[in-house]
Amino acid sequence: MLDLETIRGLLAPADSKILLLVLDGLGGLPVEPGGPTELEAARTPNLDRLAAQGIVGLHQPVGPGITPGSGPGHIGLFGYDTLRYQIGRGVLEALGVGFDLQRNDLAARGNFCTVDAAGKVTDRRAGRIATDKARELCAELGKIEIAGVEMFVEPVREHRFLLVLRGEDLREGIADTDPGHEGATPLEVEAETPAAAETAERVHRFVEAARQRLTGHAPANMVLLRGFARRPDWPEFPEVFGLHSVAVAQYPMYRGVAKLVGMDAVEPGASLDDLFGTLERVWPEYDFAFVHVKETDKAGEDGDFERKAQVIEEVDRHVPRLVDLRPDVILVTGDHSTPAALRSHSWHPVPFLLWSSMARPDEAREFGERACARGGAGLCRSEDLMPLALAHAGRLEKFGA
Amino acid sequence: MLDLETIRGLLAPADSKILLLVLDGLGGLPVEPGGPTELEAARTPNLDRLAAQGIVGLHQPVGPGITPGSGPGHIGLFGYDTLRYQIGRGVLEALGVGFDLQRNDLAARGNFCTVDAAGKVTDRRAGRIATDKARELCAELGKIEIAGVEMFVEPVREHRFLLVLRGEDLREGIADTDPGHEGATPLEVEAETPAAAETAERVHRFVEAARQRLTGHAPANMVLLRGFARRPDWPEFPEVFGLHSVAVAQYPMYRGVAKLVGMDAVEPGASLDDLFGTLERVWPEYDFAFVHVKETDKAGEDGDFERKAQVIEEVDRHVPRLVDLRPDVILVTGDHSTPAALRSHSWHPVPFLLWSSMARPDEAREFGERACARGGAGLCRSEDLMPLALAHAGRLEKFGA
Repeated sequence: MLDLETIRGLLAPADSKILLLVLDGLGGLPVEPGGPTELEAARTPNLDRLAAQGIVGLHQPVGPGITPGSGPGHIGLFGYDTLRYQIGRGVLEALGVGFDLQRNDLAARGNFCTVDAAGKVTDRRAGRIATDKARELCAELGKIEIAGVEMFVEPVREHRFLLVLRGEDLREGIADTDPGHEGATPLEVEAETPAAAETAERVHRFVEAARQRLTGHAPANMVLLRGFARRPDWPEFPEVFGLHSVAVAQYPMYRGVAKLVGMDAVEPGASLDDLFGTLERVWPEYDFAFVHVKETDKAGEDGDFERKAQVIEEVDRHVPRLVDLRPDVILVTGDHSTPAALRSHSWHPVPFLLWSSMARPDEAREFGERACARGGAGLCRSEDLMPLALAHAGRLEKFGA
Repeated sequence: MLDLETIRGLLAPADSKILLLVLDGLGGLPVEPGGPTELEAARTPNLDRLAAQGIVGLHQPVGPGITPGSGPGHIGLFGYDTLRYQIGRGVLEALGVGFDLQRNDLAARGNFCTVDAAGKVTDRRAGRIATDKARELCAELGKIEIAGVEMFVEPVREHRFLLVLRGEDLREGIADTDPGHEGATPLEVEAETPAAAETAERVHRFVEAARQRLTGHAPANMVLLRGFARRPDWPEFPEVFGLHSVAVAQYPMYRGVAKLVGMDAVEPGASLDDLFGTLERVWPEYDFAFVHVKETDKAGEDGDFERKAQVIEEVDRHVPRLVDLRPDVILVTGDHSTPAALRSHSWHPVPFLLWSSMARPDEAREFGERACARGGAGLCRSEDLMPLALAHAGRLEKFGA
């Protein structure tokens, strides 16, 4: 399997440009036997033209049968082996709320929960308290002082919050305190390795202080923590692929994942028009742009086949603006499938089209799952797309002599 | 590459059921240019309907160009990496005769052979002596007593037998005594590692005792041994995949391979009707059933294209009985190809169909090699089929958040 080092070793100097358009959760399913998927149902003359001129295929984000979360879905598109480069839950939570995680930070996902007089958990989600209430309680917990560490307690949504410890020598290897079910007491803060003992002691002090400050605040009278993780120290995308790169994404999670691999990130306004307008504005400065559309995934999660197809049609109307930017390679795909029929992410391979003047055209005349299934690029791994894009941009040297 | 640990970590609780129907040696070849394969020639309206509603593809049991034996063919279908999980020849021999191999057993494949007065091998197969004669000689060898080990000498067919030593601390790492060609003396029993020295000494005593007892029994006046192996200690299928599992197979080899990975196994009568009837009887108790049809492979090995196609048609007539069991996933495939045109196992990828209400349909309207070659599931590894089946049964959680 090609690794990042091999690819970096093959980089050729070039001034070509690559545009990656991700329609989140793009892949779909028919809602009636023999019917079209969302993408097939959508009227997409512009994407169809790119598919006809370029090459299409399907990609698998983690492996056959595996449903990816948003983290691995994007990490794969960015060319990283999703099994090797895994983002800890705490870090993902930080990305999701746009928290600017530093190298010395340790992040965890927190839940407010309810404990009874004996200290046993009676509701792991504290009755899904309102986000506003959680915000108040986070502010209260943020006042906790632990020697040698700075604390951040950020509300996420309902009972969920982000805990970040900032300080020297904070280690991973802290076990979850969430027992995973009601009726048990929260687990003690345990170090999984000797090196993590001091970090565990600091987290323990936070938990005990939180317990005191939350007394009387039932249903949110205790916290559960899980997924302790530091920002990973991975090879950076701009360096590995030799591309000055930017993410244009409306949601913090996707800007966050892009920043995690070293891309710049800009936040456009809420409309599609604004999304593509922002791209147009920053495009001259970069070699690579990742543009993220969230609404396809949301419609899929809502089980709304029609709306997902409509969003795809709306995006299609903006596609000529992408072509007008004269990129050398346009890659259009999703980070995973989110079929409206399943109302969730799924394992189904994701359609993609790669447009370039050097693409070897196949017989696809439209952009859709069936066309991609018999496309010239076959069924590949998500990690294969970046090397393919680089090659079509004239950015890879010959391997061997 | 996804490993068993990763998959086990993603298991979701579910009460869905998976049915794996294996037509041994299913994949075929045309016997005339442009003609159909055995599967394409067979009239299979029921399998065609499943293929049309589901998704089809081709799988490769070990790797491109590699012809698998029955062991790796099935191990791959069961989701195990065939290069990592290899069954020793002695163990396979034990499975083939239905010998109930224990954890403390060391098994080897034996041949009766002919040696001349100087001790040199003149026929490595002892003139392919009759199985009845071999049975007598095995009984004679079974009387050999070696301190500290129990011996089993079981006839297989013609000159072949199974040797099993049972005792404490028997080790692998015993070199073959079969020189591989005539004109040489049988090789001394050698330990390949220091730890195997005592085991080698015991095997040596068996070989010398066998030489004495066989004197005067020419052409079967000596033994050759190879493939010393213990029952492997692998992750168990029911645990890895979270499936209470049963094999329904007429031949001991296939029940044996299934038991090796921890499945239950039942032996039906000799007819197809009995095979499917037995499945119907045990189905309510299990989450996963592996049903094995041997006759396709036998017809292929006999070079009988017509009979192989007929067997496929007979199986097809029973397919509605499978559907009536209401499994959530039906997977129909072979463990390898056995084209009648080649009269042997071959490396050609094996057609499969996966039927499930959550399958993304492709354009296949029939079950055959050409349809599978352009199917929506593409060309995958055999090990990919189990994760795919689990996903379509709703038994896998999302990977990452």
